[in-house]
Amino acid sequence: MDAPDPALLRRQAAMKAALQAYVERTNAGDVAGLVALFASDAVIEDPIGSPIKTYADFPAWFGDAAAFATHITPVAPLRGSHANEALVVFDVEFTPPGSPRLRIRSADACTFDDAGLITSLRAYWGPEDIEPA
Amino acid sequence: MDAPDPALLRRQAAMKAALQAYVERTNAGDVAGLVALFASDAVIEDPIGSPIKTYADFPAWFGDAAAFATHITPVAPLRGSHANEALVVFDVEFTPPGSPRLRIRSADACTFDDAGLITSLRAYWGPEDIEPA
Repeated sequence: MDAPDPALLRRQAAMKAALQAYVERTNAGDVAGLVALFASDAVIEDPIGSPIKTYADFPAWFGDAAAFATHITPVAPLRGSHANEALVVFDVEFTPPGSPRLRIRSADACTFDDAGLITSLRAYWGPEDIEPA
Repeated sequence: MDAPDPALLRRQAAMKAALQAYVERTNAGDVAGLVALFASDAVIEDPIGSPIKTYADFPAWFGDAAAFATHITPVAPLRGSHANEALVVFDVEFTPPGSPRLRIRSADACTFDDAGLITSLRAYWGPEDIEPA
């Protein structure tokens, strides 16, 4: 293996720090802190195949997550890349209104800008990946 | 939750079966069986940020994987989506020529055509995600 590019290593560390903050702020119900992790032109597709959410939608989206007592448990170390993309793999539990608590086996694939802000988040989970918690 | 669309559930099952075959054929060193999982216009970007490989490159690519005694161990259940994408999260060990055995913490994000063949495979792993096995 050649020695990795230091700039690439710094980028990987910055992306993984942002994803770690995403997990911690989700579990703290920190809506403003979650929105602050995203660029103003960012998009969320959660799950992949559902309608795209844009920045104006994020406060309500993360507000619902907080109201539903959403808790993320990573199930593997974060994965980086050799570019501006990284992945967090987790189980997530939440309680929608009038529903028992649910668990989704999910993974969020994110792209980042040069400032380390998330520019897109695409969530891998299918209808068969959700179950009672 | 609404009842999932049966066609979507069938698609998820087909994608996950293909990813399970990808793991098993990798571990068996079955080069032809691996190539057969891909559409003829498929592309591989492994890792994300490296040059794209096209179908003509796949026999040599998977041939090297077999020659390097590549072994994949999934570390979480497969993730689907609500579209034609699915994810396998794994550790992979292999021994390149003249190298000690290595381990990469990786994940392959794949898209599929209507026949269930892989049309793109993008691998999440950064320079910090590889280590001696």
